[in-house]
Amino acid sequence: MEFSLAELSSRISARHSASAQQQITGVASLESAGADKCAFYANPRYKKQLLATRAGAVIVSEDDAALVPATATALIAAQPYVAFAKASALFHPAPVAVAGISPHALVHPDATVDPTAQIFAGTVIGPHATIGPRTIVRPGVQVLAFAQIGADCLLHAGAVVRERCILGDRVTLQPNCVIGSDGFGFAFDLEGDPENPGPMHRKVPQAGIVRIEDDVEIGACTCIDRATLGETVIGRGAKIDNLVQVAHNVQVGPLSLLVAQSGVSGSTTLGAGVVLAGQVGVVGHLHIGDGARIGAQSGVSRDVPDGATMSGSPAIDHRDWLRLSASLPRLAELVRDVKRLSSRVSELEAALDAERRSR
Amino acid sequence: MEFSLAELSSRISARHSASAQQQITGVASLESAGADKCAFYANPRYKKQLLATRAGAVIVSEDDAALVPATATALIAAQPYVAFAKASALFHPAPVAVAGISPHALVHPDATVDPTAQIFAGTVIGPHATIGPRTIVRPGVQVLAFAQIGADCLLHAGAVVRERCILGDRVTLQPNCVIGSDGFGFAFDLEGDPENPGPMHRKVPQAGIVRIEDDVEIGACTCIDRATLGETVIGRGAKIDNLVQVAHNVQVGPLSLLVAQSGVSGSTTLGAGVVLAGQVGVVGHLHIGDGARIGAQSGVSRDVPDGATMSGSPAIDHRDWLRLSASLPRLAELVRDVKRLSSRVSELEAALDAERRSR
Amino acid sequence: MEFSLAELSSRISARHSASAQQQITGVASLESAGADKCAFYANPRYKKQLLATRAGAVIVSEDDAALVPATATALIAAQPYVAFAKASALFHPAPVAVAGISPHALVHPDATVDPTAQIFAGTVIGPHATIGPRTIVRPGVQVLAFAQIGADCLLHAGAVVRERCILGDRVTLQPNCVIGSDGFGFAFDLEGDPENPGPMHRKVPQAGIVRIEDDVEIGACTCIDRATLGETVIGRGAKIDNLVQVAHNVQVGPLSLLVAQSGVSGSTTLGAGVVLAGQVGVVGHLHIGDGARIGAQSGVSRDVPDGATMSGSPAIDHRDWLRLSASLPRLAELVRDVKRLSSRVSELEAALDAERRSR
Repeated sequence: MEFSLAELSSRISARHSASAQQQITGVASLESAGADKCAFYANPRYKKQLLATRAGAVIVSEDDAALVPATATALIAAQPYVAFAKASALFHPAPVAVAGISPHALVHPDATVDPTAQIFAGTVIGPHATIGPRTIVRPGVQVLAFAQIGADCLLHAGAVVRERCILGDRVTLQPNCVIGSDGFGFAFDLEGDPENPGPMHRKVPQAGIVRIEDDVEIGACTCIDRATLGETVIGRGAKIDNLVQVAHNVQVGPLSLLVAQSGVSGSTTLGAGVVLAGQVGVVGHLHIGDGARIGAQSGVSRDVPDGATMSGSPAIDHRDWLRLSASLPRLAELVRDVKRLSSRVSELEAALDAERRSR
Repeated sequence: MEFSLAELSSRISARHSASAQQQITGVASLESAGADKCAFYANPRYKKQLLATRAGAVIVSEDDAALVPATATALIAAQPYVAFAKASALFHPAPVAVAGISPHALVHPDATVDPTAQIFAGTVIGPHATIGPRTIVRPGVQVLAFAQIGADCLLHAGAVVRERCILGDRVTLQPNCVIGSDGFGFAFDLEGDPENPGPMHRKVPQAGIVRIEDDVEIGACTCIDRATLGETVIGRGAKIDNLVQVAHNVQVGPLSLLVAQSGVSGSTTLGAGVVLAGQVGVVGHLHIGDGARIGAQSGVSRDVPDGATMSGSPAIDHRDWLRLSASLPRLAELVRDVKRLSSRVSELEAALDAERRSR
Repeated sequence: MEFSLAELSSRISARHSASAQQQITGVASLESAGADKCAFYANPRYKKQLLATRAGAVIVSEDDAALVPATATALIAAQPYVAFAKASALFHPAPVAVAGISPHALVHPDATVDPTAQIFAGTVIGPHATIGPRTIVRPGVQVLAFAQIGADCLLHAGAVVRERCILGDRVTLQPNCVIGSDGFGFAFDLEGDPENPGPMHRKVPQAGIVRIEDDVEIGACTCIDRATLGETVIGRGAKIDNLVQVAHNVQVGPLSLLVAQSGVSGSTTLGAGVVLAGQVGVVGHLHIGDGARIGAQSGVSRDVPDGATMSGSPAIDHRDWLRLSASLPRLAELVRDVKRLSSRVSELEAALDAERRSR
């Protein structure tokens, strides 16, 4: 596949700095790109690489255009990273379903698979499950009974969708993620069962489901627990990274981002456009407001208002946390300072006392 | 399925506040329950929902009974959450094995599957593995050679039980969990092998097993490593949430709870009824006493006595940690205070000095 | 299998303290070893167990040899843990491939499987994938299109290697790990698509691969994301524990160790011999120098120089962190001290003022 710079430019809504007859055959990093490749620059950390690039074209913002070396055409975009995403998608189109069910797929006779869907070998589609148009189900995927998978979904190898869970359209499941595992619900019972008396953790049936709305992506080995009753919901356009835990009855608002290894406890609701950075933990039964951003490794134990930025464990306002983090390494010194100050005050007290007596 | 309030009440060991001829057809949340549903109240966060509920019955404690609206019958229970678990289980009974091996299951001829067990399509049962009575093995489960699975177990899709590991009775494995992965044991060898000299991490064979006792539940994508030698043990009635790491030779005591994304390092022993909240980390070779409770995101680096409650990283007594957490946001201010105080003391010293000289 | 002490000793490069005719039939822990077993001692925590052991032989360092009870032969080694690893490997040799493809494996006709490899039932090997000599592919493994697996690898049940990823020789994948999941790359697009306008997270194609060098081990449910462009690389001899997240375009240097539940964000590079302890998080676009060691649960947000030891979140020099950790529990007290000190200074100021006025 190749595009002239003029065509590429137009397809990604960029404007180009120079003549645009040149052919571009792909996208590449600033470091590895040759004259027929289009690279991308936005992070000032990589300025050195930009100045030295041998790329034929570089997507940049208006402000950075002057930095692009003379050997490259600047493709100036209002949203450079978006323009790069579009350019890369031209050269790396999403996989397209090759309609058909592998003879080595185990599709239950009571399942409904759209004729345009592609079901690979080594998958299991349970009774009364439905697979929508143009959806691709890779090897080793398990879709359990009564699960519903929408149109244009991509289920990667080893993903599990448990019974009755619902996926919208254009949902991507990365490998080995789990949709609809039981929530962690146990009632501590001091008495136990007549045939087996004594304390036990009695299982609370996890009878609800997971509903994943359109355009969601779920990361590898991420677990979304089904609701105790009702639904755990992942809102439209939300993106969830690898190894994330979403507990029962959580609601994740549209366009939210949950970065790797973050976790949300039961019944907590996230508004629209919330960002949880890596390894964040959120306590149960809270509400995180629209557009709130939580810094990496933070622990959220209280409701978060709309638009707030929080950090730390327990999480506080991000600016306060920055000040705190700057002060923390001085704490040992501070303890010493206070001890010294205390001695000086004692001496002053004694001196003043002596002064008084001496009169 | 439906029950009269009188029968439901008796089945869950509750007593009811009013006439009990009404039929109940299921359990539901306070918000979604209609007149034929039974809801549940215990967390004061949901008081508003209780007051507005249209449920036909609400399970509550004696103390909360007066809050139940007149339109609902209060089902008063000594352990309301336990009573709710029992009520929900009446309407959502656990799945029952439909005896038989799917023709699409790959069961090794040397495996022993109880005739009452149910083996789904797309499973692999290895040589000399045994599957107990009434156990259900869902699609995509891998039970490796010589593994032993007890009676009435439920192995969800994609769970892996590696060779020789042992599960007791009534064990539930959530999807894609791993029982018996190799422990992380490597000896740093400065010399390396004759044919490949130089430093290397030499693998220490992980020759032991995992033994899971009765009534344990293991969460989705949770990993329980086999012992280097001997056994990693998950004690009777313990419940482990999703994405938890249990390292080689760990012993988890009976009825312990390990919440999502917590991790326990090698050879550490947990007593009975220990609770690790979400994202807790415990260093290796420690002992956590019976009934100890560790707060979310804490890092435990020392033995914990019986009954202790610890928080923070490194973990300290929970009350001390509460005081610490309350003080922390004031740290930047404290630094300023000490600086100001220091100036005032300097001024005092100068003034006193001047005072003395002036005499 | 059994060895005389003399032979065992020679095979593990140890020297023995006494006569060595005795036969050793295995390795065991200090506590469980009988007279025909070889145990191992290095951690002073287990001194009591050493003194009470009934083992026939104990591998120790020169310094600890005198502690070995008279009933046991001391096997003195320069690197005791390495000697133990070698001894254990004698009794627990790594599994050897039994050449052949199970009739229940789903191997694509365009895949290339070395005739000496062993492919178990219930695996899927995609088109144009290659499996090297003596490699073992356990049940439920998915090797996608064009993936290349080297020689003498061991792929445990449920592991997924996505399309085009490359594994070197002697690579071990623990169960349900994921090699080559999509990186978490989305460009926030305020405009959206013409047919679906409005803000969206536009997927950046993850068109690169993962390359795993020789002698690497990857833990259970660990996820290694493919590069956006180019390669995510796990260097020779690195060992990665369970539930670890390695993001797109990360480079892990040779012989590095990533302990369970740690995570490395995109484009960060780790030098040689880096150690990330459990639950560590590293921000993106950083460089962690050779031999750096990061303490458990730390959060690294800046470049780390070669050989540094860092702890805390945000991470600071480990010794500073030790001091900080020791001071932290005194913080509430410090706040009180400063308040008291402030009163004393106020009193002093008033007193001095009075003193002056009185003159």
